[in-house]
Amino acid sequence: MEPPVRPTSETGRLEAFSDGVIAIIITIMVLELRPPEHPSLAALAHLWPVFMAYGLSFAQVGIYWVNHHRLLDRADSSGTRLNWANLLWLFSISLIPFGTAWYGEFPGQAIPTALYLTTLLLPGLTYIWLEKEAMCSGDRDPENRIEHDVQQRKAMFSTAFYAAGIILAFVAPAASIACTAIVAIVWIAPGSRIDRWFGGGSTKLSS
Amino acid sequence: MEPPVRPTSETGRLEAFSDGVIAIIITIMVLELRPPEHPSLAALAHLWPVFMAYGLSFAQVGIYWVNHHRLLDRADSSGTRLNWANLLWLFSISLIPFGTAWYGEFPGQAIPTALYLTTLLLPGLTYIWLEKEAMCSGDRDPENRIEHDVQQRKAMFSTAFYAAGIILAFVAPAASIACTAIVAIVWIAPGSRIDRWFGGGSTKLSS
Amino acid sequence: MEPPVRPTSETGRLEAFSDGVIAIIITIMVLELRPPEHPSLAALAHLWPVFMAYGLSFAQVGIYWVNHHRLLDRADSSGTRLNWANLLWLFSISLIPFGTAWYGEFPGQAIPTALYLTTLLLPGLTYIWLEKEAMCSGDRDPENRIEHDVQQRKAMFSTAFYAAGIILAFVAPAASIACTAIVAIVWIAPGSRIDRWFGGGSTKLSS
Amino acid sequence: MEPPVRPTSETGRLEAFSDGVIAIIITIMVLELRPPEHPSLAALAHLWPVFMAYGLSFAQVGIYWVNHHRLLDRADSSGTRLNWANLLWLFSISLIPFGTAWYGEFPGQAIPTALYLTTLLLPGLTYIWLEKEAMCSGDRDPENRIEHDVQQRKAMFSTAFYAAGIILAFVAPAASIACTAIVAIVWIAPGSRIDRWFGGGSTKLSS
Repeated sequence: MEPPVRPTSETGRLEAFSDGVIAIIITIMVLELRPPEHPSLAALAHLWPVFMAYGLSFAQVGIYWVNHHRLLDRADSSGTRLNWANLLWLFSISLIPFGTAWYGEFPGQAIPTALYLTTLLLPGLTYIWLEKEAMCSGDRDPENRIEHDVQQRKAMFSTAFYAAGIILAFVAPAASIACTAIVAIVWIAPGSRIDRWFGGGSTKLSS
Repeated sequence: MEPPVRPTSETGRLEAFSDGVIAIIITIMVLELRPPEHPSLAALAHLWPVFMAYGLSFAQVGIYWVNHHRLLDRADSSGTRLNWANLLWLFSISLIPFGTAWYGEFPGQAIPTALYLTTLLLPGLTYIWLEKEAMCSGDRDPENRIEHDVQQRKAMFSTAFYAAGIILAFVAPAASIACTAIVAIVWIAPGSRIDRWFGGGSTKLSS
Repeated sequence: MEPPVRPTSETGRLEAFSDGVIAIIITIMVLELRPPEHPSLAALAHLWPVFMAYGLSFAQVGIYWVNHHRLLDRADSSGTRLNWANLLWLFSISLIPFGTAWYGEFPGQAIPTALYLTTLLLPGLTYIWLEKEAMCSGDRDPENRIEHDVQQRKAMFSTAFYAAGIILAFVAPAASIACTAIVAIVWIAPGSRIDRWFGGGSTKLSS
Repeated sequence: MEPPVRPTSETGRLEAFSDGVIAIIITIMVLELRPPEHPSLAALAHLWPVFMAYGLSFAQVGIYWVNHHRLLDRADSSGTRLNWANLLWLFSISLIPFGTAWYGEFPGQAIPTALYLTTLLLPGLTYIWLEKEAMCSGDRDPENRIEHDVQQRKAMFSTAFYAAGIILAFVAPAASIACTAIVAIVWIAPGSRIDRWFGGGSTKLSS
């Protein structure tokens, strides 16, 4: 009988603004894809690290967008503190194009690789404060809790892999990128099997 | 008596985010239009391939936007898989400015022309998965079905023309661009006559 | 008793997409404001034509946004043709940053000045088709009609001034810019007195 | 019993357009973060003034966004004058990336530092007209009034600090940046203690 609880207009504008910023971040990276200076397939193939970096970063920003999206949908509160936590998160995610561009120029080098993974890791760290400010009380429901716990474990796993990747950058930069790719697969691959591995059996438990 | 079924808030945010990304893609291409270095009409005229490429790409992205728009309006489902299908589609469409920029620099060359048409074709291919995930059950209604079939045939025709254009790029790059222009005309030209050609007689059947 | 007639969701998304494109157009021009190469006031002052061009173009795009805004609010129809008319209009307005950048580099030169005014004029011409497709039947009400007529006369006046400015560019480029400034003043200055000059006595007639 | 008074659709579109512009402004500054030309930590560290300028400007634009957000939420009026006041404000805020870029290139120099602080100050000045046009009558309620007065004092304090910073730029540029940082802290730091210092005891009075 009651209408579904809609996000307040304040959360609505927060979402719209965040979507705008994320849409720009995800798209301006394509500006780094400078067309090759010779009209040959070899010149194009030579750009593969830049392409790979663009593809990986697009996936990572996409993952963050999907999660941010879910978070604000469930948010119970809105206000100045949530605004600032969100702005800090947007700031940290806005550094990804910088990390991507440097990595794309020096794909096999330790420092640019480590910085690239650091820029991918940072939004995960600032997300912790954002999550706290959003105070999703609905997560206390047993059903949501399992999903929430799976998400938390995935997030911890991602953080660990990014951190490992930063260290690996000084030994084997290619392994760092493999870490990033694994994180992307964990989030993007169709959930059921991977979710079960992360402790979720939500379909059974919630039925 | 019942209010019209509105897209869920989730689809709403998907639309808003997609619109943001498409708006940026369609507009950043204008950044490739570097002003000529001499203040003369000859210097301006010298830019015509860049202008033509910008105009054509604007039209193609516009066509994709109009179709994407229709698709999400009719979408029955929303969720993580639709999110990812949509992100993959956005990724493929985000490569168009890159293809356009390279083509604009080397307008008569085989490889840049072939790549340009490939970047125009890709969003058409990723659109297939997006369409499947959106699961528009309304398309089973006889009336919508005819419109839907016309759209499908137009899409197949576009794919064939792009593919032909990619091959033609190695023989006659100008013919590739003609293929692109024909695709644009098929979608933009006032519908009735072209739609009938694609098998639609919707006005008769639906009345 | 009845709820106010709301724009259809289709017009809503058209508005949102257009706003996104216009927001990008109005803002990317600031990217042309390259910081001076010397940290001196003289170097900054040297940029005044670029600043002036940015300011003028911002005002012109702003005027177009305000009018576009009003048009879609009153639109009676939505559909494929309106979509295309709107995309053509967005295409023409997207050329303004290009015209602005070239003018900013060669402020006293005939051809760049003429092109700049042409890019400012073009969205006015494509707006005619857009207006026709939007079919604002509400404009037939006597009250709205007067406002509409004032708008039409202002639009014709602007077109005439831009056209005159394009010709003047070959004689006195500074006079072209004066034409542009006059157009901006006509639209931005507080309405009553200017509106009366354009034939509006709406406050009297509508009461 | 009554539904809460919602902003008119006109204010809604004004908000959406402004959010778009602010999202672009806050994000394009990251394009100034050019990746270092050598893959070393030293080369990265060498960029610290550019990073600091980006971080500070992100915070300032964020503060303006939060305040603009609050203002339009409480706005009683909408119309042509509000549109123009808002466009002028957007124009002034759009100059921040320019100021940031010049400061980032010449961090210790008087003129770029003074210009940077001027671009930060300008949106504060144009905000005065915007605030007048929005005519927030709700601010006359005693409860809102205290919050409003705190905001006004913070705004005056910010203006004074920016103005002082502009003068200090010619003596000690580092002190100018300290002024900017203090302004950021005043707005971002958790409110209660700072608000009390600015004359607010709202929690007591409103209970």
